Amino acid sequence: MVPLKLGMVGGGQGAFIGGVHRIAARIDGHWHLVAGALSSDPERATESAGELGLARSYTDYSEMARAEARHPDGIDAVAIVTPNHMHAGPVVAFLRAGIHVICDKPLAATPEQAHEIAAAAGDSTAMFFQTYNYTAYPLIRSARAMVADGQLGRIRVAQVEYAQDWLASEVSNKQADWRTDPAKSGAAGCVGDIGTHAFNLLCHVSGLKCTELAADLSTFVPERRLDDNGHVMLRFDGGAKGMLWSSQVAVGRENALSLRLYGDKGSLEWNQENPNLLRFTPFGAAPRLLTRGGPDQPEEGSHHLRTPPGHPEGYLEGFATLYTQAATRIRDARRGVTSSRNHIPNLQDGLAGMDFITACLDSNARNAAWVKLVPSDGSSMSDP
Amino acid sequence: MVPLKLGMVGGGQGAFIGGVHRIAARIDGHWHLVAGALSSDPERATESAGELGLARSYTDYSEMARAEARHPDGIDAVAIVTPNHMHAGPVVAFLRAGIHVICDKPLAATPEQAHEIAAAAGDSTAMFFQTYNYTAYPLIRSARAMVADGQLGRIRVAQVEYAQDWLASEVSNKQADWRTDPAKSGAAGCVGDIGTHAFNLLCHVSGLKCTELAADLSTFVPERRLDDNGHVMLRFDGGAKGMLWSSQVAVGRENALSLRLYGDKGSLEWNQENPNLLRFTPFGAAPRLLTRGGPDQPEEGSHHLRTPPGHPEGYLEGFATLYTQAATRIRDARRGVTSSRNHIPNLQDGLAGMDFITACLDSNARNAAWVKLVPSDGSSMSDP
Amino acid sequence: MVPLKLGMVGGGQGAFIGGVHRIAARIDGHWHLVAGALSSDPERATESAGELGLARSYTDYSEMARAEARHPDGIDAVAIVTPNHMHAGPVVAFLRAGIHVICDKPLAATPEQAHEIAAAAGDSTAMFFQTYNYTAYPLIRSARAMVADGQLGRIRVAQVEYAQDWLASEVSNKQADWRTDPAKSGAAGCVGDIGTHAFNLLCHVSGLKCTELAADLSTFVPERRLDDNGHVMLRFDGGAKGMLWSSQVAVGRENALSLRLYGDKGSLEWNQENPNLLRFTPFGAAPRLLTRGGPDQPEEGSHHLRTPPGHPEGYLEGFATLYTQAATRIRDARRGVTSSRNHIPNLQDGLAGMDFITACLDSNARNAAWVKLVPSDGSSMSDP
Amino acid sequence: MVPLKLGMVGGGQGAFIGGVHRIAARIDGHWHLVAGALSSDPERATESAGELGLARSYTDYSEMARAEARHPDGIDAVAIVTPNHMHAGPVVAFLRAGIHVICDKPLAATPEQAHEIAAAAGDSTAMFFQTYNYTAYPLIRSARAMVADGQLGRIRVAQVEYAQDWLASEVSNKQADWRTDPAKSGAAGCVGDIGTHAFNLLCHVSGLKCTELAADLSTFVPERRLDDNGHVMLRFDGGAKGMLWSSQVAVGRENALSLRLYGDKGSLEWNQENPNLLRFTPFGAAPRLLTRGGPDQPEEGSHHLRTPPGHPEGYLEGFATLYTQAATRIRDARRGVTSSRNHIPNLQDGLAGMDFITACLDSNARNAAWVKLVPSDGSSMSDP
Repeated sequence: MVPLKLGMVGGGQGAFIGGVHRIAARIDGHWHLVAGALSSDPERATESAGELGLARSYTDYSEMARAEARHPDGIDAVAIVTPNHMHAGPVVAFLRAGIHVICDKPLAATPEQAHEIAAAAGDSTAMFFQTYNYTAYPLIRSARAMVADGQLGRIRVAQVEYAQDWLASEVSNKQADWRTDPAKSGAAGCVGDIGTHAFNLLCHVSGLKCTELAADLSTFVPERRLDDNGHVMLRFDGGAKGMLWSSQVAVGRENALSLRLYGDKGSLEWNQENPNLLRFTPFGAAPRLLTRGGPDQPEEGSHHLRTPPGHPEGYLEGFATLYTQAATRIRDARRGVTSSRNHIPNLQDGLAGMDFITACLDSNARNAAWVKLVPSDGSSMSDP
Repeated sequence: MVPLKLGMVGGGQGAFIGGVHRIAARIDGHWHLVAGALSSDPERATESAGELGLARSYTDYSEMARAEARHPDGIDAVAIVTPNHMHAGPVVAFLRAGIHVICDKPLAATPEQAHEIAAAAGDSTAMFFQTYNYTAYPLIRSARAMVADGQLGRIRVAQVEYAQDWLASEVSNKQADWRTDPAKSGAAGCVGDIGTHAFNLLCHVSGLKCTELAADLSTFVPERRLDDNGHVMLRFDGGAKGMLWSSQVAVGRENALSLRLYGDKGSLEWNQENPNLLRFTPFGAAPRLLTRGGPDQPEEGSHHLRTPPGHPEGYLEGFATLYTQAATRIRDARRGVTSSRNHIPNLQDGLAGMDFITACLDSNARNAAWVKLVPSDGSSMSDP
Repeated sequence: MVPLKLGMVGGGQGAFIGGVHRIAARIDGHWHLVAGALSSDPERATESAGELGLARSYTDYSEMARAEARHPDGIDAVAIVTPNHMHAGPVVAFLRAGIHVICDKPLAATPEQAHEIAAAAGDSTAMFFQTYNYTAYPLIRSARAMVADGQLGRIRVAQVEYAQDWLASEVSNKQADWRTDPAKSGAAGCVGDIGTHAFNLLCHVSGLKCTELAADLSTFVPERRLDDNGHVMLRFDGGAKGMLWSSQVAVGRENALSLRLYGDKGSLEWNQENPNLLRFTPFGAAPRLLTRGGPDQPEEGSHHLRTPPGHPEGYLEGFATLYTQAATRIRDARRGVTSSRNHIPNLQDGLAGMDFITACLDSNARNAAWVKLVPSDGSSMSDP
Repeated sequence: MVPLKLGMVGGGQGAFIGGVHRIAARIDGHWHLVAGALSSDPERATESAGELGLARSYTDYSEMARAEARHPDGIDAVAIVTPNHMHAGPVVAFLRAGIHVICDKPLAATPEQAHEIAAAAGDSTAMFFQTYNYTAYPLIRSARAMVADGQLGRIRVAQVEYAQDWLASEVSNKQADWRTDPAKSGAAGCVGDIGTHAFNLLCHVSGLKCTELAADLSTFVPERRLDDNGHVMLRFDGGAKGMLWSSQVAVGRENALSLRLYGDKGSLEWNQENPNLLRFTPFGAAPRLLTRGGPDQPEEGSHHLRTPPGHPEGYLEGFATLYTQAATRIRDARRGVTSSRNHIPNLQDGLAGMDFITACLDSNARNAAWVKLVPSDGSSMSDP
């Protein structure tokens, strides 16, 4: 099977998430990175492209979109791995050029940018994928299917948290700088950077729709301009309640994204730092430790396994699954066949994340009062 | 050393916490149970007293208080282990009779009852001890001392939760019935029964004073008349923020009281279900697993050890420590010596718990709006 | 119910296990300690007895046995908590006096002493209980019943280990001194002190009979005269195989007694440091986390619960269960009723432990060659 | 940087480890798979090569070795991923052709084959890499460096185990069939397949040299012709002792390779199923939880990190590191520069594994008597 051709905007020297996307694209062999506008700095762009052996290097994403669209061997999709404020420009450019887009989260730095993207997507035949990568862990797939299958009964309580400590003191480096700069990150700090992941994961697995929230955001590190800790109470359609905690000052926690769902028939508990384990308790029975690829779980959990149980897969494999699914969607679309039912995060997820950010900022500005979430449109969270 | 003489109100056949108090009183040999008004039902009271081999059995606590005060070999202290609405009556009676009181939590079923108790305590020379038993685990003692010593620096975030599942469906038994009956439990259900433990533990260890809170209480089990799940956001004096989750519908969780404190210099994480382990992370260093009686912790953690590290102590031993400390206080007071600095939960803790309940109910009644906590008096949480 | 009267030999000031026995005897209220020969040093014996408020203090165990047998209010049973070499003397004396014996493990310091005890027991109407306390944890009771019920199928592999580090360097204190002195501990060090616990637990839960073993014992701490680490391979009747590791130089391990049993239908895994959890995996299914008092286990696991699930019981409660069972046996015997089927470790367990020690020493002396275990008699491990 | 060109022998449709090697080779982008003799069945070889988009497909490895050596764009290295009995043939062929070899473990099915390989390697300028992949986990690198640095002091006890359950009952599939067939696997079953991994890991991290061992091997599944469980006692140069347990009938265990090392100054404990955590206890201090890429560890642990701490890397990333290191060695050799000091498993490791298998079989044949390990040559385990 001939690999698809991938382009990349952002991800030059010193970047973090660009490298992750590149490994993710390589793991299953479905993609070949051939072109990029890796940096807005021409010299760094060229150097970075050289290191990666790219066939075509650009210093301007607009030019890249135009050129690749015309190129006989042009890219099939582009990965957008720039800081938040630099998502909308390239996303819109590539969608207009009819090139599929794989975009890092959150969707954009502002609601206005999100709307531009949504408008461009509406006008384009190209697909948009949002890399809410944590949804792609096999046990998260199992969890989602178990909820959908009714194994938890009616969900009553959803607890999600995402705790890190890398911003617990004043830090200055490429990663920290843009994330704590309102001009680049948008008006949300921690709640946008990782709170959105937590919110997305909760909604993705539980199928719950958040109807209102109350958010108390804090900035603990002196001089910091954006929130570095967020406490959010959530209410869901149908009466379920939830809590979300996102923090980048939780000393001793590296990347502790955890999800716990409690229904009237059972519960699920999962932690990203040991993603190959899922604790499932049917009400009245002993907890079961479900393992990636192991017994007692729905087949959705086994769609993208590369190794047998006990041979841990990690963050990169989860990310890779999104790239593999995107490749499948693109190929299926070309052949005119209907893609499998596996969800891959898309524009609706991206917009839902923006709505969440907006609601949190709004609530926080009003002393953590309850604010309604008005979904961007009625089809939130549904499949593309 | 001659054991002190203990009386008990409540704790007859079918009771849970009465039996716990009795074992706790026995473990270290400082108490001898000699008298009781174990049930308001005369027959059951007599039968229960017979089973326990009590020297004196009463059917009325007022009579018991009067008789024991006059008895030449009268009790040194009384344990009050009745349902919440039956705390104030006996507590006041025994305090007035000059007999020390060891009372289960929460302090009372209503603020009015709490005030009666406070007034009686003010007029009495007798001491009042509130069995917030989770404070007495050795590693909780270490944790409190480490915070006081500045090892966490300035605390920024406090996450506490208490999750059970025994009320996840409609249940009817002696324990469940009174806890879900407003006439016996008071206006708070889960948030009063276990939320108070969580709140007390957070304040006890962190030394933080909660200044306002927003509480979203739920009742998930149909027909239930009191809350069975509570989500609370907390703000503390000095700018720290917190979350408290108490639930009795968290399927798969038995008695999961956990506390996590994050400061600018370090963090502490502890879970009651494995109470012999405390995770301490100095900022920038690898987490340390502190063990009960083990190395790298302050001597406060070693005041009440009965077994070496690795020989697990549990719930009953923690509870026993309160009884042992109460015995020491009583003996010290008789000898006119100053007691050790070890905190034993007292009336102030009891009143703080009532303030917490009141604030939660008030907030919840106003759509989880923020409400101020006005401490019952200025000396909240200080030692007696 | 009137408590039984307990005497104690050993356990004076500075002792460890004597204090454990006393708490264990108190916890459920079935025993009252009234007499003791707490130390061979007369002054310390008197002082220790005074601190404990004993009615009668002796300086000589023989005198105590005679006197208590004649005393109208004499003790019902005696606890022997002396160092190993001082077990046989008092055990024989009390058995001859017709007084029930509760003896710490191992049975004795030498095989000869063990035989003396066995002979005396054969001639006595008194009962002998051996405090292999780890057998009394509720989940160990569940595990034993599950194995007996066939839930593991035919056991193939048994892995047991007991790792401590308190003797990892040269230590000198009352506990360490006698345990590392051949004159007091016997010819076995670590393998006798804790290896016997591991071996007993394995046999108790699995029901397997060890037929031969090969033991490689080491002494790592310079100047030490007894083994401080033992590696043992085991073969069992029926073809199962096992490994036993006992160590007192395992830096970082406090009291890590763990048992793992693998059958053709399922497995069980348990660790003493978190005794309220038992991992059960039916072949082909996800592991179940069984909790003390929780669901999905046989009723044997719920015979001696003092607290609900999630309220951890520990080392002392397990120990207390042996005292409670001993009290029941004594009362049942007096009333002429048949005791329940619950196993309480007895002389056969004690002798099996001695056989294990002898075999280990023998094997080790012959370069860890395989040696047969000839059980002391045919009824090894059976109930009294 | 232009990727190196990789060939593969074995790994056609239905294979497991071939797929792992291919992903491992792709992850860091240092390799491009261009040629293969993927199956001895010509049709399957062609089909498999087509699926993978190989430039050149062979049905005979000898022909492949000759052809690639002559090809102007011939492969730089070949991966040998056939069953054990098919290692020696292709390894020798490629070494003779001067093509670097990356070979799965164990080295061969028989000592004779191992010697052929060793002879061919001695005559060749090509390098030989053995994929003892577990050595490449970052925390294993940290562990090895910590031992070398003296942080454990003198190692006394080494406990290693590798427990799986996938062969706990009769199984028939491509993976199981050759592993349980003496003609393909060699005379060792489980102890060769995974016992060698355990032994290699122990030696790699501890630096200990095993001087003698006693092995008790079992075959539990009826009709099986090779061992499926092995108990081994180990003695090391300098007096350390160890135990190794390898099992493929350990119901409930998926791929539980764990290593524990106890020295007089500290200990290390690690489990492959959660490879991003390493427990380090300095004697007398609380255990530290070292995390992949986290604080308090030597820089050797950070040589091959793809993601920040808390973003779990797994089995494939560890495997990929071997491929990346092999690429570096090959490039360094071409440029005539000295490679870094990072160990990559090599022929000596392969031969040590064969010696281990031979000794185990020999001991087992003599009722688990102690047998000496005579290392294949004096430079065992040293770097190439």
